Amino acid sequence: MNAETLERFKQLISENRMTTNETILEHHSKDESHHTAHLPEAVLFPESSEEVSKVLSYANETKTPVTPFGLGSGLEGHVVPASGGISLDFSEMKDIVEIREQDLLVRVQPGVTRSMLDKALKKHGLFFPVDPGADATIGGMTATNASGTTSVKYGVMKDQIRDLEVVTPDGQIIHTGNLAQKSSSGYNLNDLYTGSEGTLGCITEITLKVYGIPEHVTAARATFPGITEAVDAVTTIVQTGVPVARVELVDETSIQQVNKLMDTDYEVNPTLFLEFHGNEAGLNQDVAFTEEILNDHGCTDVIFEKDNQTRMKLWEGRHNLAYTYSHDYPGRSMMVTDVCVPISSLAEAIIFGREQLEKQGLPGGIVGHVGDGNYHALMMIDKSNEEDIRKAENFNKAIVEHALERGGTCTGEHGVGLGKKKYLEAEHGAALGIMKTIKRALDPNNIMNPGKFIDID
Amino acid sequence: MNAETLERFKQLISENRMTTNETILEHHSKDESHHTAHLPEAVLFPESSEEVSKVLSYANETKTPVTPFGLGSGLEGHVVPASGGISLDFSEMKDIVEIREQDLLVRVQPGVTRSMLDKALKKHGLFFPVDPGADATIGGMTATNASGTTSVKYGVMKDQIRDLEVVTPDGQIIHTGNLAQKSSSGYNLNDLYTGSEGTLGCITEITLKVYGIPEHVTAARATFPGITEAVDAVTTIVQTGVPVARVELVDETSIQQVNKLMDTDYEVNPTLFLEFHGNEAGLNQDVAFTEEILNDHGCTDVIFEKDNQTRMKLWEGRHNLAYTYSHDYPGRSMMVTDVCVPISSLAEAIIFGREQLEKQGLPGGIVGHVGDGNYHALMMIDKSNEEDIRKAENFNKAIVEHALERGGTCTGEHGVGLGKKKYLEAEHGAALGIMKTIKRALDPNNIMNPGKFIDID
Repeated sequence: MNAETLERFKQLISENRMTTNETILEHHSKDESHHTAHLPEAVLFPESSEEVSKVLSYANETKTPVTPFGLGSGLEGHVVPASGGISLDFSEMKDIVEIREQDLLVRVQPGVTRSMLDKALKKHGLFFPVDPGADATIGGMTATNASGTTSVKYGVMKDQIRDLEVVTPDGQIIHTGNLAQKSSSGYNLNDLYTGSEGTLGCITEITLKVYGIPEHVTAARATFPGITEAVDAVTTIVQTGVPVARVELVDETSIQQVNKLMDTDYEVNPTLFLEFHGNEAGLNQDVAFTEEILNDHGCTDVIFEKDNQTRMKLWEGRHNLAYTYSHDYPGRSMMVTDVCVPISSLAEAIIFGREQLEKQGLPGGIVGHVGDGNYHALMMIDKSNEEDIRKAENFNKAIVEHALERGGTCTGEHGVGLGKKKYLEAEHGAALGIMKTIKRALDPNNIMNPGKFIDID
Repeated sequence: MNAETLERFKQLISENRMTTNETILEHHSKDESHHTAHLPEAVLFPESSEEVSKVLSYANETKTPVTPFGLGSGLEGHVVPASGGISLDFSEMKDIVEIREQDLLVRVQPGVTRSMLDKALKKHGLFFPVDPGADATIGGMTATNASGTTSVKYGVMKDQIRDLEVVTPDGQIIHTGNLAQKSSSGYNLNDLYTGSEGTLGCITEITLKVYGIPEHVTAARATFPGITEAVDAVTTIVQTGVPVARVELVDETSIQQVNKLMDTDYEVNPTLFLEFHGNEAGLNQDVAFTEEILNDHGCTDVIFEKDNQTRMKLWEGRHNLAYTYSHDYPGRSMMVTDVCVPISSLAEAIIFGREQLEKQGLPGGIVGHVGDGNYHALMMIDKSNEEDIRKAENFNKAIVEHALERGGTCTGEHGVGLGKKKYLEAEHGAALGIMKTIKRALDPNNIMNPGKFIDID
């Protein structure tokens, strides 16, 4: 970008909303992943959809790469400005525009974080279920079709989206949906832009479905002698239709980390963390039935927690797992990967993952939203050590291929970004050609988040 | 189409699988709607995806219009070959390819009907919830993103789709998804092709989510002094999060029809038909809570049915409503239209609909899947009477505009076809341009179901 182009961008948005400050450029060069950082040439902080429209129009005219940025909590390098250009930071667009209590809908700007939304909804007796762990922005969660611990009951991000305001690469401001619960009118643009990782336009407003806070909640922790028993218990719970709200697997090595962090003395064995939401009578019946299933699968210890405080403490361990690994391996970075398989293949997939981790000799653990057939591997690697990088790549390749052979997907919730791009051809075959046709048609100058997700050259 | 082209099509598929027989052409010229019929030049009955691929390739080469046909149970003229060409009838592709009991998945060909699927699933203790009333094909239901009475609990067609095999206009055979419960890999093609009404390609295989048959089911019929009270009761049920499985409104005039058909003596007043699925304890608590809500809203009579036989009888009345209207107005045809609004606008929308029906002086009624904010108007019109057609069109326009002003959609489940095309611009604004760009990119010769859904010229 030359000085003139840069100056023109500056004029298109509010005063002091563009910077080339080194520290800020640096902050926008990476996310929480191991992927190689790359500096943008400038960072812009738009305050309105109209500003975003002006910026994109000019970027399109000058073929300047644009990388949307939420909070940088992604795990596959989505926000890395791999081709330079400008980073568009949505942190100044953080209004909760409207809460439509009667319609169980909320309209927010993309920079609103999950915790900001939760706080606002609580006053109305409502909550938003999608919980990817990090306190991500709603814009980022929409762009990656995020999910998390509660998706087994409430669905993933795309299941909550009623409408998006999107600014297209040529600066048009469109709405992809409406406020009705369902529609058969026109192509489903909501679900096309959700999960498109900023490659088709910028999301500037999101209308989401929200839920009444459940009447009753019970959590549980159940220990098993082996991973097979734990996963088999989960598949039985899902197959028999128990409406479990969360079901997380934490493996042996990860339980050790939880014990260290939380000062607990949980038995060091594969463990399930579960949660149930419902009316009191139904929930009690679900819990009793689940306990039977857990015991049928050789569960050695199960504890139920109804109390809010102890329940929170139970989940704190699971949620802070990534932090505790990082804390315990100074000098190493965490590489997290995720795949998702049909539930019937889950036990063998996780056992295969555990074996591969040991084969590569990388410290780490396996955890996951196992009710969905989705698991994560956490690996602690020394990013400056080529051997470690190679091992991690080998691991990734092995579990992705294993998942694809079983009809699974290379990423259940983290997205493609830089890390999973190389697997799209194997996963989608000829359908990748259709995706490229769509990208070419909707972003002909390839200005939106180029170098990530999909290549069209 | 000249004789040579026709002959070539004939050679591309199995023997005796193409016809120009008048009766069969006639059968493929229309659906169950009031829309003007138009004959295809030939009807082809492919037996495999490979045959569909050959047919589409040649149609693309010769720019021959292709109209996919399931059973013709659509309500907006989707299968009318408005531009001539060939009708592609999928009734010979009716295999239930695979039931993956453990994964709660089923893979079917597009010609499988809902009742065929139900019968096959029952043996495994499973069921498929989407129930649009007609015994439609799964291919047709996917193409229109159908829904129906149970969508308030189980979601619409798109919520069940894991993977589609699609033949693109240039004859490629692609898969749009995978077997995992969730994925963040690539653009969401499942949801782009679902509801695309045959305008982007032909769906040749569908992998669907299925469910365990609910442990306990209770149905209910509740009578109200007025529509407002009935709808307000529904919105309260939905807003308080009772997981109701069906909730249908049947208005006064429609209850009269039910009484005639079923020889019942239901009170002639706005009536709700409800159903609850769940474990016994939870269901009982839901039912007790619902009864309180119904009474709070002035319900004058409520009857609960646990017995399977009487429950079936209760729903039979609702399901055969269209038939009874047709039977009662010989010489008239039924015109059915649907809109969907945010739940907070539902009462006023239905009252407005009832008023407009009376204003136009058309016999008919209002019924609907009110838990979704979706309602239908049934009008008995004399298709040869221009005045009747004009009245029906005026009615349609009035309720669509009313719905759009409230953030709703011009069709909740029937689709666009010929009937709702004229409202897409008002509903989608600039987003319609994006839809046209997608259509142009994926079907550049406009061979797939031209003249319907979207115009790209």
